[in-house]
Amino acid sequence: MSEQERDYDEFRVIEDLAGWRRTHHNNELTAADMDREVCLMGWVQFRRDHGGLIFLDLRDREGMTQVVFNPEDNATVHERAHAIRPEYVVAVKGRVRPRPEGMANPNMITGEIEIEVTDYKLLNTSETPPFPIEDRVEVAENLRLKYRFLDLRRPSLARNFILRNKAAQSVRRYLDALGFLEVETPVLTKSTPEGARDFLVPSRVNQGEFYALPQSPQLFKQMLMVAGMDRYFQIVKCFRDEDLRADRQPEFTQIDIEMSFVDEALIQDMAEGMVRTLFRETIGVNLPDPFPRMTFADAMRDYGVDKPDLRFELKHIDITDVFKESGFKVFASSELVKVMVVPGGAELSRKEIDEYTKFVEIYGSKGLAWIKVKEDGEWQSPIVKFFSEAEIATLRERSGCKPGDILFFQAGPADVANAALGNLRCELGKRFNLIREGEFKPVWITDFPLLEWDPDEKRFVARHHPFTSARPEQMQVLKEDPGQAIARAYDIVMNGFEVGGGSIRIHTEEQQEAMFAALGIGKEEAEEKFGFLMNALRYGAPPHGGIAFGLDRLIMILTGSKSIRDVIAFPKTQKATCLLTEAPSEVPNKQLRELGIRLREKKKEE
Amino acid sequence: MSEQERDYDEFRVIEDLAGWRRTHHNNELTAADMDREVCLMGWVQFRRDHGGLIFLDLRDREGMTQVVFNPEDNATVHERAHAIRPEYVVAVKGRVRPRPEGMANPNMITGEIEIEVTDYKLLNTSETPPFPIEDRVEVAENLRLKYRFLDLRRPSLARNFILRNKAAQSVRRYLDALGFLEVETPVLTKSTPEGARDFLVPSRVNQGEFYALPQSPQLFKQMLMVAGMDRYFQIVKCFRDEDLRADRQPEFTQIDIEMSFVDEALIQDMAEGMVRTLFRETIGVNLPDPFPRMTFADAMRDYGVDKPDLRFELKHIDITDVFKESGFKVFASSELVKVMVVPGGAELSRKEIDEYTKFVEIYGSKGLAWIKVKEDGEWQSPIVKFFSEAEIATLRERSGCKPGDILFFQAGPADVANAALGNLRCELGKRFNLIREGEFKPVWITDFPLLEWDPDEKRFVARHHPFTSARPEQMQVLKEDPGQAIARAYDIVMNGFEVGGGSIRIHTEEQQEAMFAALGIGKEEAEEKFGFLMNALRYGAPPHGGIAFGLDRLIMILTGSKSIRDVIAFPKTQKATCLLTEAPSEVPNKQLRELGIRLREKKKEE
Repeated sequence: MSEQERDYDEFRVIEDLAGWRRTHHNNELTAADMDREVCLMGWVQFRRDHGGLIFLDLRDREGMTQVVFNPEDNATVHERAHAIRPEYVVAVKGRVRPRPEGMANPNMITGEIEIEVTDYKLLNTSETPPFPIEDRVEVAENLRLKYRFLDLRRPSLARNFILRNKAAQSVRRYLDALGFLEVETPVLTKSTPEGARDFLVPSRVNQGEFYALPQSPQLFKQMLMVAGMDRYFQIVKCFRDEDLRADRQPEFTQIDIEMSFVDEALIQDMAEGMVRTLFRETIGVNLPDPFPRMTFADAMRDYGVDKPDLRFELKHIDITDVFKESGFKVFASSELVKVMVVPGGAELSRKEIDEYTKFVEIYGSKGLAWIKVKEDGEWQSPIVKFFSEAEIATLRERSGCKPGDILFFQAGPADVANAALGNLRCELGKRFNLIREGEFKPVWITDFPLLEWDPDEKRFVARHHPFTSARPEQMQVLKEDPGQAIARAYDIVMNGFEVGGGSIRIHTEEQQEAMFAALGIGKEEAEEKFGFLMNALRYGAPPHGGIAFGLDRLIMILTGSKSIRDVIAFPKTQKATCLLTEAPSEVPNKQLRELGIRLREKKKEE
Repeated sequence: MSEQERDYDEFRVIEDLAGWRRTHHNNELTAADMDREVCLMGWVQFRRDHGGLIFLDLRDREGMTQVVFNPEDNATVHERAHAIRPEYVVAVKGRVRPRPEGMANPNMITGEIEIEVTDYKLLNTSETPPFPIEDRVEVAENLRLKYRFLDLRRPSLARNFILRNKAAQSVRRYLDALGFLEVETPVLTKSTPEGARDFLVPSRVNQGEFYALPQSPQLFKQMLMVAGMDRYFQIVKCFRDEDLRADRQPEFTQIDIEMSFVDEALIQDMAEGMVRTLFRETIGVNLPDPFPRMTFADAMRDYGVDKPDLRFELKHIDITDVFKESGFKVFASSELVKVMVVPGGAELSRKEIDEYTKFVEIYGSKGLAWIKVKEDGEWQSPIVKFFSEAEIATLRERSGCKPGDILFFQAGPADVANAALGNLRCELGKRFNLIREGEFKPVWITDFPLLEWDPDEKRFVARHHPFTSARPEQMQVLKEDPGQAIARAYDIVMNGFEVGGGSIRIHTEEQQEAMFAALGIGKEEAEEKFGFLMNALRYGAPPHGGIAFGLDRLIMILTGSKSIRDVIAFPKTQKATCLLTEAPSEVPNKQLRELGIRLREKKKEE
């Protein structure tokens, strides 16, 4: 019987389940289920014809089961099974039986059994996918994102979303048990001054006006505290219209938390308890209790960054004082001079060092001085000749360098030297396999400066946000030397990522006004820009504070994913586009007219 | 000592808790805690000075506790307490003791005890609120929304959010136990053809292009099914830029659910189980198992609407046939003639009837015919004179009307007559107290028409959405007489509200093309508008379907709230504005320039 002669109906895709009921997922059946009558549904991973039999590996979200079509069991069904191709969707009824002697697969949960098919329905066909649905295959990311509905079928990716769901449940359970209420805050809200760039939404009803998508529910959660909600949380989408880096998305998910009647210690206890519970419940890892703490100043001193990866050492050493009076003017004139000793680093080639030199330039550095310690203890370096004997001796002693090491230097403005050497540390950690993969090293970073100088705007801006409280005893400092004020802010850093950050908020009108004054925002401007906050502070705002976690990044760490796009179901590219839906897109002029807006003429070169 | 002479420090607001730790909420302490040393924090509900003592009722999210300042216990603290006003935020330390003989308040959990204050801190002051923080007070809604941070302190409103949180937890627990994964879908997505009006977000990176906020994650959840995610849910914000009615918000929250390898029965079992669990776990109400079912046709016949409130009877009676040959041309020429008998309705005044006449005009009706049945059985009516003896007799028999009743008629095009008499039914239900308050009457409405005729566009449009499947046996009908095709769609209706609705989706390219054809969308246009969906259907889409619930409305029903704004923390007005933050607002031109858009000139009259 040729394909053409077969009754069409027997091969057609059915539009309905016709009453069939799936009895198990494809990871469930084992030797304990022998002889059971079952009904499985899923996608065909492989079809193998062997000895007159047709074998399928049937896949679903949970796993894989082998099913067998035998002409002796049911000739019609066996005949129809010839039509099956990979990624077809099928339903089979059959009996669980042991695989033949020697055919068991100990790597599969269902590896001891197979299903002897007695009846079968074709639920859908599939064209040949543009890439095989397997973990091992390397596929160009653009193709993966365009065919995201196929990409997500790959078990490793599907697992990320199973874990993500588990993580969110764990967080909710933990917070619920502590009396936190999940309260939803608006997505269509008001543009925030003093923040990053907002996404705007033109209002049709109020033409000429715009909503903004929230960068975080910061002011709403503070309103909820003033409202007496006491303990709030929300797992919530936030938005920032910034140029995207590799691990950034225009929309991201935050675990947003706020508490009343608390200080730093209470929030930190709650927050690290949440993270510990999360790690234990999702990947079975026990994090330290309590988390270690490190001041911002210490982090900058030892690691050059405020989110140090503590899975490896490679600390910085401040040697500014050593060269204060040096004849080597590059060092002598620098605000900060630091060195980092890389054990075994003398093996680095000139080419590699050149690459690292380019790398530090990203951070504004003007160069990368180095010293190789040869096996005989002698120093090889383009700069040592400028050092005095005393400088060399002190450097040798302070750095504790040994034969085979390399010393890397940064000298310059403190922020540049720190950023350059801090980020170089991470590169070298990878290059020399210093990072203990599989380890999780959380640390609280505390005592942040409240403000930082914005050279463009020529004024102080809030380092965290303008609602962050200064230490009570620092109110005077804030007035007299704002740059020195210490914030009641704290970050949780893990493995080089900031996974959470928060602060005790200002809860009195007086302190909020002082903060705005330090930012160069006068009373009138404050009233105009932050009127409802100032108003709320006048009506019994309780002491409160909170923290927010980047859920995407936490899941990335928990799953060991290399890209944040692997933990987001439908991510955007670095050009902020969705390759699946082709968003953003042009819209009919009629829609713009309704919104009272028009496009600007494009520039000539376009 | 005058106010001026007091040491400032003693009265000042502290910026820090100074290590104080709250030991209990204000609903916790009872006679069982006698003599316990406690620390409470909260807002001052009342201050009462009596017999040299100062009494405060201290309020927090959970409840109220009485605290007493006694000069004999601590003279300084008692002195300082004179500064306390309503809504001040205070922390007190003290001892639990019985209230004096006869002073217990049996209406409060904490009514048997009071706290003898030994130490006290003023955490914040408050101006006099624009309205008292009490449930009993009627306040203009605009004032409430502007001072939402005070409005939410009112116990009845706070309770709504406690219940809302509990409801979301209940839903998540239920779905989690059934293997549903909560997966987040994008907020910045693509404008959907065939839907309501989208909110648009101009793209800065891709100038001239726009994202749209999702009206629902419909296509994304279908993508997740094609991706093998099997069981998806999400409690998610959705957006519709439509003119707002009383119970609508531009952003609303949906419990969005999708399942693979299912048919209607499986989804309905799951969904009503969820609703039953929700009602049991939040308000202790047991809903019927299973929910009753009613076809769309039956609902229209008996109630004139597809979301009947079954808490009261007052069914419609179709009497079109009675007047088919009538001399009363208004009835004889009408597509549909219906009557509704209101027991005891003869008491309605002429004025009331006039108001109901105006009411039905909202729905396009041209008038409201009526018959009052007098106590002597005689009919009083402006229209009876046009009826034949036989018509009167049949009407009397069919309607079963009794002395004291009123009969209301609608005649006209079926949709107008149904809508007018259907909505009048609800008005009369209220007027005659027929609605059994406190009852919850869920019902499945099934067998909806797949399409409806759009007179403006002069084509069929999808009644649910264009991804809704027709019954398999109706594929031919869809081609030949599209208006007659029945959808595999279902709504859960409760107490006159549609609380949830869903369908089995189309999962084959062939049927999706047939559907688009019925909507007048050709292959090319389908490819252009729904390319990624058509593409996904080609690669092994499983049979799937789902349902979505309006969470706001469910919470409104569960809490017995009159307005949807009472279950949303920061709702918008009917003009789509937020009175608290004053969103939307104008934005600096610089921001618009970055987005490549400009405002249209406003019309002259503005």
